[in-house]
Amino acid sequence: MKKLINDPQNVVTESVEGFVLAHADIVTKNDDPLFVSRVGGAVQGKVGLVSGGGSGHEPLHAGFIGVGMLDAAVPGAMFTSPTPDQIAPALQAADGGAGVLAIVKNYTGDVLNFETGAELADAEGVEVATVIVNDDVAVENSTWTAGRRGVAGTVLVEKLAGAAAERGDDLATVTAIAQRVIDNVRTMGVALTACTVPHAGKPSFDLPEDEIEIGIGIHGEPGRHRIPLAPADEITATLLDAVADDLALAAGEQVLLLVNGMGGTPASELYIVYRQARALLEARGAQVARSLVGNYTTSLEMQGASVTVLRLDDELTGLWDAPVHTAALRW
Amino acid sequence: MKKLINDPQNVVTESVEGFVLAHADIVTKNDDPLFVSRVGGAVQGKVGLVSGGGSGHEPLHAGFIGVGMLDAAVPGAMFTSPTPDQIAPALQAADGGAGVLAIVKNYTGDVLNFETGAELADAEGVEVATVIVNDDVAVENSTWTAGRRGVAGTVLVEKLAGAAAERGDDLATVTAIAQRVIDNVRTMGVALTACTVPHAGKPSFDLPEDEIEIGIGIHGEPGRHRIPLAPADEITATLLDAVADDLALAAGEQVLLLVNGMGGTPASELYIVYRQARALLEARGAQVARSLVGNYTTSLEMQGASVTVLRLDDELTGLWDAPVHTAALRW
Repeated sequence: MKKLINDPQNVVTESVEGFVLAHADIVTKNDDPLFVSRVGGAVQGKVGLVSGGGSGHEPLHAGFIGVGMLDAAVPGAMFTSPTPDQIAPALQAADGGAGVLAIVKNYTGDVLNFETGAELADAEGVEVATVIVNDDVAVENSTWTAGRRGVAGTVLVEKLAGAAAERGDDLATVTAIAQRVIDNVRTMGVALTACTVPHAGKPSFDLPEDEIEIGIGIHGEPGRHRIPLAPADEITATLLDAVADDLALAAGEQVLLLVNGMGGTPASELYIVYRQARALLEARGAQVARSLVGNYTTSLEMQGASVTVLRLDDELTGLWDAPVHTAALRW
Repeated sequence: MKKLINDPQNVVTESVEGFVLAHADIVTKNDDPLFVSRVGGAVQGKVGLVSGGGSGHEPLHAGFIGVGMLDAAVPGAMFTSPTPDQIAPALQAADGGAGVLAIVKNYTGDVLNFETGAELADAEGVEVATVIVNDDVAVENSTWTAGRRGVAGTVLVEKLAGAAAERGDDLATVTAIAQRVIDNVRTMGVALTACTVPHAGKPSFDLPEDEIEIGIGIHGEPGRHRIPLAPADEITATLLDAVADDLALAAGEQVLLLVNGMGGTPASELYIVYRQARALLEARGAQVARSLVGNYTTSLEMQGASVTVLRLDDELTGLWDAPVHTAALRW
């Protein structure tokens, strides 16, 4: 295992410490329990947005704290759900009196712990609504998951619900927007290499030198099947077709196309995937109205990528274009 | 070799094609010869900024085209200098009548080809000034280099000179600012793993499983020495001390700290490096006034990072804070 780390047990705390120092104009942290939130505290009268989950998927979630997106994020240990006693104070910290929306990726531990955290926060007078992101079409159930997994589509939920909260929508409306995004977003990914959790010290799974895993999860959970390494255009077609078919995408629809890197894949390769995914969408008669390409929901140093398609409508497009000022997404 | 590519010979053209499609609001491309430039063409009356070099270092350089930074970029083949007949029309495309500054990383091929390209553009009536970036303190001469190599500090030269051009400075002033940045910026990097050039098909160098290369170049050129894998804080101290000593950094000075990922290293590790580099700068009495952490000057999928320190003054800080709107840097 070759990593730029010190004690494997300290990777999350040291990384969050560096992150907060580098972006002190945007974020601050609470140490015990650990969570990250907007500098200056909750915005009075605005619906708060909180997400969280196991670490190792950076910039998800703390990288998306800031104006137009999240108010707080709760980093668990590496690939491990945060605890309810971390989640509850983060929900409280994000509450500006208009309630808080928790955006939770569909993993059993995350769902349970956010549920308990929300109950604890509720007991302190915080109104909490929750949405569960489950955009991964690869498998129906999986390691740590009942139902579909939540993956890169989470970034789009956070951006669009965040913009709704920022313009002053109430909790029910922000929640409905988040759910509309979830209902209209689908993702599938591929791994070329495995990743190594620091305290485990060895790769999460074995992938032969001449094979790739189609439908990989963001923790290296098994996908649909392994195939021999193939040209990028073929791999992309497999991912895009699964996503677009599941979305029942019709000709004439407008979409947002996100090509997400898993952490270890160069930008040049992501743009090759983007090129083909876009061509295939256009061949279906869809219009790629908005795009995002980069490392947004990663799996440590895993090489691979995922393709996400979100069906847009005029309101969602407007929310996408609204200003955002976070460490990892800014316009 | 496991990569998300099609024919290795087409990596650059397909990647640039995807890049331009994804960022069509910012950039456009010329196909033959290949270069990328601002959509809408040169800004009349503004000094144009052009950079370029071998591909494989993305987002450098095309990712930095846009308001507040470059006007055009010339991507060579993978790790190979662009040709004069690519460079000359890019210089012409960037000329809004106030001349063009070429920002060239110090590699023999880049320097020669930009020199010839500038002569060709000059014959077409374009006034061209050139600066050579040589921020890498690791080695004095190297593969492909007489003198020090140009590495991640290039991004800071492009941002600060770009801001000067945007506010209306003339060619001599923009050139002087770029040179002031070059005079005050230093970098050193480390590789944990090698990278593989697609058409070569095998790693550029061999690095044993228990060793790392201190002072690596961005093409995998040899650095200062190989050492056994060490904790991140120790590695960071080696890099930061070399950089700060070479810069003759004094207590009380303000600096910009850039921790740059080589392409295959997760964000969490870059922030661990940032945390320690910042602590060491503060221990020297320097103040880290501005920061940048991420993959900005990469070496394909190489795992590793570099530490860059720029000595700031009030004018440079103001130019750093000026708005920028590119694919890879935006505020």
